[in-house]
Amino acid sequence: MKRHRSGEVWDFELEMPMSRDACDVILGLDGGTTSTVCICMAAMPLSNQSSDTVPVLARSLAGCSNHNSVGETAARETLEQVMAEALMKSGSNRFAVRAVCLAVSGVNHPTDQERILNWLRDIFPSHVKLFVQNDAVAALASGTMGRLHGCVLIAGTGTIAYGFTEDGREARAAGAGPILGDWGSGYGIAAQALTAVVKAHDGRGPQTMLTSSILRALELSLPDELIGWTYADPSWARIAALVPVVVSCAESGDQVSNKILLDSVQELAASVKAVVRRLGLCGEDGRSSFPLVMVGGVLEANKRWDIGKEVIKYISKDHPGACPIRPKVEPAVGAALLAWNYLMKESEGNLGR
Amino acid sequence: MKRHRSGEVWDFELEMPMSRDACDVILGLDGGTTSTVCICMAAMPLSNQSSDTVPVLARSLAGCSNHNSVGETAARETLEQVMAEALMKSGSNRFAVRAVCLAVSGVNHPTDQERILNWLRDIFPSHVKLFVQNDAVAALASGTMGRLHGCVLIAGTGTIAYGFTEDGREARAAGAGPILGDWGSGYGIAAQALTAVVKAHDGRGPQTMLTSSILRALELSLPDELIGWTYADPSWARIAALVPVVVSCAESGDQVSNKILLDSVQELAASVKAVVRRLGLCGEDGRSSFPLVMVGGVLEANKRWDIGKEVIKYISKDHPGACPIRPKVEPAVGAALLAWNYLMKESEGNLGR
Repeated sequence: MKRHRSGEVWDFELEMPMSRDACDVILGLDGGTTSTVCICMAAMPLSNQSSDTVPVLARSLAGCSNHNSVGETAARETLEQVMAEALMKSGSNRFAVRAVCLAVSGVNHPTDQERILNWLRDIFPSHVKLFVQNDAVAALASGTMGRLHGCVLIAGTGTIAYGFTEDGREARAAGAGPILGDWGSGYGIAAQALTAVVKAHDGRGPQTMLTSSILRALELSLPDELIGWTYADPSWARIAALVPVVVSCAESGDQVSNKILLDSVQELAASVKAVVRRLGLCGEDGRSSFPLVMVGGVLEANKRWDIGKEVIKYISKDHPGACPIRPKVEPAVGAALLAWNYLMKESEGNLGR
Repeated sequence: MKRHRSGEVWDFELEMPMSRDACDVILGLDGGTTSTVCICMAAMPLSNQSSDTVPVLARSLAGCSNHNSVGETAARETLEQVMAEALMKSGSNRFAVRAVCLAVSGVNHPTDQERILNWLRDIFPSHVKLFVQNDAVAALASGTMGRLHGCVLIAGTGTIAYGFTEDGREARAAGAGPILGDWGSGYGIAAQALTAVVKAHDGRGPQTMLTSSILRALELSLPDELIGWTYADPSWARIAALVPVVVSCAESGDQVSNKILLDSVQELAASVKAVVRRLGLCGEDGRSSFPLVMVGGVLEANKRWDIGKEVIKYISKDHPGACPIRPKVEPAVGAALLAWNYLMKESEGNLGR
């Protein structure tokens, strides 16, 4: 553990007593491609499984911490800074930390985990318990209050389904990016809508309300201009931002938009079903209950054409035991709860010995 | 017209008589995103509509000349250089040129045409007739020996259908890139195949022979590694290079591959049908004949599973007058023939006055 580093992120600790008297804390971190959130939570037993009682002491925010996008050095600096800020805001320091759970996108293999664990070992005292996970795992934990059981479906710009059995087996479906078929995602929906506009324009497809709505949203005058628009900046998030336009066209009765959303529902449901089937989450009789955590802009229940609700309907047909949960806390809190649960299991294990 | 420029591309002319005695020539240029071909053809009447008699004097080759990809200055230099080389190789010079037809990708609007015409005016003497077209037009002309009538279907890495009526109306379908739905293209076929592998792996789709065949072709061991492979370099041509793997799996009876190719056939046929319908190429009775020029790696007739043949079958069902043509000359020759035909029409017009 280093007391001083370039950038002096830990200087605030010099002005505080570096003692073990402070209230013990846990750090939970959710690192995505757009932003990174870190929360500092008091390490105390939760009175019940309710989100109202989570003792969050501080929250800090930073940019991208995906090493694939910004490189290893920048990712590491961002992670260190956002954790230091959360500790400083909570009036705490590194000696008070009992556990850290980093849930970051781009963690797919044990080698990714090991590399990030090494960074953390360099920052924290040796008594601190360290956990590294894929960000989908924190999203699951945000719905189950830290319990790793069930399946999470994330559908924002991208999409992934990720599940765990109670005995620790895991499986995922989708999450491989748009080239590799994440068609239920926000990007997928918007790309299909753009395609529908081009096809209506060149005579390959039926006319659709999407043409005028999308051109208006993008401040373009002709469908031909969409070619230049997509080439100018093919970032997935920019394209996915068109999802609300598709939803509102579908709500106005546009058949093409309706079909695009129905296809998306089937794709998203197929991801969850694949995970549930592989893990046997619905039990031998097919009726066991399991948490189904729903996260991401595409699944938000604020529209008449409710994609999330339709996905649940499709899944429930095959798996009536699916218990849909829309998390009330953010994934960073899920990560902290995950760390807390690991700690509890470990101390139970120690008591048993 | 400049005699000297940086790079001295026209210096060879100083060592030749700058007279009008040399045999008159025509330059035809086909500029794509990968390479640029220029041919120099003798300006003489073609004895018949046969490709054997095209009097090509020289051919030169250069890299990308799409201004969207390499920028305006580099594109311009490449175009000038490749034309100078073709003239030099043919023992000719700029005073012997009667016409130039530049067919380059990325020419979609009159403003693109006007900008490139201005470059050409800067290079050639004022008597030279100059024409600028989309590269699909040269591909059509390569099948019709320079006549702008009928429809061309290009299916390589990308795909486009482009058609002309005899009275000069034109229409296109597809050609907007993979985000905007060019699913029949080589890229489209390969992306569907990669998706099928991921879906088979995570339980969303049926098992397929594509898994072992694609992993072997890419020297990967696990389907998970495809994520890293696509992120490492998402260039369309790199992905489209997997088409032969899909075709050979389909030939071995793999159902998933077969379905991907059938879908591609329908998409490609739909592009042509849209153009034919909009231009009324099949006449009022729906049985008029029109040239259907087929170009590009995906349509090459060298497999048992022959995508090109299937596309023709689909189109002919609706439009029995479609006369499939596989060009025997390259698009650059098509561009030169196009320029020759323009010249002929012009002189006929002058005679008529």
